[in-house]
Amino acid sequence: MFALHPTLSADTLVVGDFPLSRCLLMNNARYVWLILVPRINDLREVHELSEADQQQLLRESSWVSQQLATTFKADKMNVANLGNVVAQLHWHIIVRHKNDADWPAPIWGRQPSIAYSHDEAEQRLNQLRQVLSNNDKTPLTCPKA
Amino acid sequence: MFALHPTLSADTLVVGDFPLSRCLLMNNARYVWLILVPRINDLREVHELSEADQQQLLRESSWVSQQLATTFKADKMNVANLGNVVAQLHWHIIVRHKNDADWPAPIWGRQPSIAYSHDEAEQRLNQLRQVLSNNDKTPLTCPKA
Repeated sequence: MFALHPTLSADTLVVGDFPLSRCLLMNNARYVWLILVPRINDLREVHELSEADQQQLLRESSWVSQQLATTFKADKMNVANLGNVVAQLHWHIIVRHKNDADWPAPIWGRQPSIAYSHDEAEQRLNQLRQVLSNNDKTPLTCPKA
Repeated sequence: MFALHPTLSADTLVVGDFPLSRCLLMNNARYVWLILVPRINDLREVHELSEADQQQLLRESSWVSQQLATTFKADKMNVANLGNVVAQLHWHIIVRHKNDADWPAPIWGRQPSIAYSHDEAEQRLNQLRQVLSNNDKTPLTCPKA
């Protein structure tokens, strides 16, 4: 059974599941910051996935990236697998704006997080589920309310 | 004709060309830090590539990542498209070690670069060309000496 690393679990809210990856929202209202985690245990690097799964990960990543870029009028998308702190393979997709607090630096390890309020979280998750649905190649299954 | 951004050109040495991407070595002896730049003008985001080119980019990325991880005994690979400073689509592949100067932080914008000497650069480029050759799916064409 797939196990999400406890740190990833504590820091995020679940948007839903794509065919390969769990889609998570970082609980940080400073940024629209999503994370894809392939639901396969003991993975650390993208190149450890099968070629078919690598392609599916990129398909899911590009769908998310494109939808977020349009919806949130990104100046740039930041897409990355780092994993120096939490090694479980997780793929960051972050909306960047030229007036954000860290621009043009990468955002990791800089500003302290600002947790969403209950209402903000619900609103953001609903918005993301709507924006990320309706793609036959990467259908999104959302948790039941 | 494909044009590399002048900053990328100034900061790197050419390893060679994969079918899609130019493979560059950052001229920074602190890290084994490669960059893939798809040879298509006016690109900023991975999701702007055709699906076939996205898959080829990931094929090239995973080949490089896997070969570098093994050759340089990486503790973790860092793979990222940021582009907040230079927008031209470029894909970082960086070997990280637990005893490197920035671990576990991302390396961008932290320590000043240390340029390779002429001999170090030649040696590193030769090593990389050897390590990154011999893959039928991502053949590497190197500049003539």
